[in-house]
Amino acid sequence: MMQNTKYNAAILIIGNEILSGRTQDTNTCTIAQWLNPIGVKVNEVRVIPDIENTIVETVNHLRKVNNYVFTTGGIGPTHDDITAQSISKAFNLEYEIHKEAFKILEAYYKEGEFNEGRQKMVWMPRDANLILNPTSGAPGFNVENVFCLPGVPSILKSMLGGLTNRIVGGKPILSSTISLRTVESEIANSLTEVQNDNQDVEIGSYPFFQAGKLGVSIVIRSEDQSKINNCNNQIIEFVKKKKIEIVDR
Amino acid sequence: MMQNTKYNAAILIIGNEILSGRTQDTNTCTIAQWLNPIGVKVNEVRVIPDIENTIVETVNHLRKVNNYVFTTGGIGPTHDDITAQSISKAFNLEYEIHKEAFKILEAYYKEGEFNEGRQKMVWMPRDANLILNPTSGAPGFNVENVFCLPGVPSILKSMLGGLTNRIVGGKPILSSTISLRTVESEIANSLTEVQNDNQDVEIGSYPFFQAGKLGVSIVIRSEDQSKINNCNNQIIEFVKKKKIEIVDR
Repeated sequence: MMQNTKYNAAILIIGNEILSGRTQDTNTCTIAQWLNPIGVKVNEVRVIPDIENTIVETVNHLRKVNNYVFTTGGIGPTHDDITAQSISKAFNLEYEIHKEAFKILEAYYKEGEFNEGRQKMVWMPRDANLILNPTSGAPGFNVENVFCLPGVPSILKSMLGGLTNRIVGGKPILSSTISLRTVESEIANSLTEVQNDNQDVEIGSYPFFQAGKLGVSIVIRSEDQSKINNCNNQIIEFVKKKKIEIVDR
Repeated sequence: MMQNTKYNAAILIIGNEILSGRTQDTNTCTIAQWLNPIGVKVNEVRVIPDIENTIVETVNHLRKVNNYVFTTGGIGPTHDDITAQSISKAFNLEYEIHKEAFKILEAYYKEGEFNEGRQKMVWMPRDANLILNPTSGAPGFNVENVFCLPGVPSILKSMLGGLTNRIVGGKPILSSTISLRTVESEIANSLTEVQNDNQDVEIGSYPFFQAGKLGVSIVIRSEDQSKINNCNNQIIEFVKKKKIEIVDR
């Protein structure tokens, strides 16, 4: 398996709506795909409820064992939005009005619209760095290696572009996929041999159904294109021997 | 918040393909929605890679602090399918051929098709209880409070029906949603008052965009319908006062 990646991250999804099954999380996928070319590997994802102690303890664990932690959710104006106060507690920082965020939202809203509810969104850990929000004004923030983003997928997506330059990563994580008209059991042994020959490459095997037919996608991941190519060639070799069809997918 | 729920669960998604962003997990949603009427609340979700030590340690933590643990993924025939051997290790049980599972797959496949790759799928922790698979033959299994299901969503879904009677839960977790043509900041204070008046009910506020318009869904969750109704009435009251439109969603 890939052992030589230097930069890793945890994603922390904060929100009862994901745990209850009401809302399908898509932010994990978005953040992971954004991190691959930056050269940061997602080690772990956790989904936890809107409970302060749980957030504090989980953040304090994850930030110690990962280069980066990305949280989503809980930074809006309602009673169940407790991420900013929880992060303040986790870092033992004052939870207070962030002057720069206040100015941004004061300018964003029409006169009279920057009400008490909206002002809650400028309360942050002292001296947090803002993450600008080109969609709906209210910024996210980061403290040390913890980056707090909103839960609404379209808003989160629009904020990642501005964040890219602040994330230091390793070599981009590359991947290659070969899809086959076969079932996993037909290729399991050959694939094990390829994995054993290429221990620092991550090889995954994923069955799929497409147009009523079974298939298997083999995904090869590494920072080194030549290692990917090498695996690719070994796979093509056994695929030809077994007369398995390669399919587009 | 809801404090009186007696039965809780963790979901453990095992698979590099979720962490890399290649595959969008949908099994969390499926399992959580299946558990609500059984009266089991999902406390936590974790996504972890296909690494034996990580699986062993995570399972051993989660099974101690939850009534149930549901794992998904890693029970197929390929080299990256290591859930069964990891669960054996977690429980300190022999990892061996499960006779009943062997018989099931022997009967499922045509003569000559029950090859070495497929036979890997009958290796399980000693004396595991099988979870039957009406879609593709290969069963899942459970040991004590840990239930191991496949990663392919359609197969997982088809196996839950047969599992329902084996899960002991509390009262069904009920929910009610009111969707409003407003923004969160307009209702934040009123909603906080309702939450303070109803501390054992879980009230969530979720902004949405629909047909180009902003809205907010308020979700009320409790085991007690009368408590939900009470919150509902209090919300309708402030909504009318503020002349906010209620919308279908």
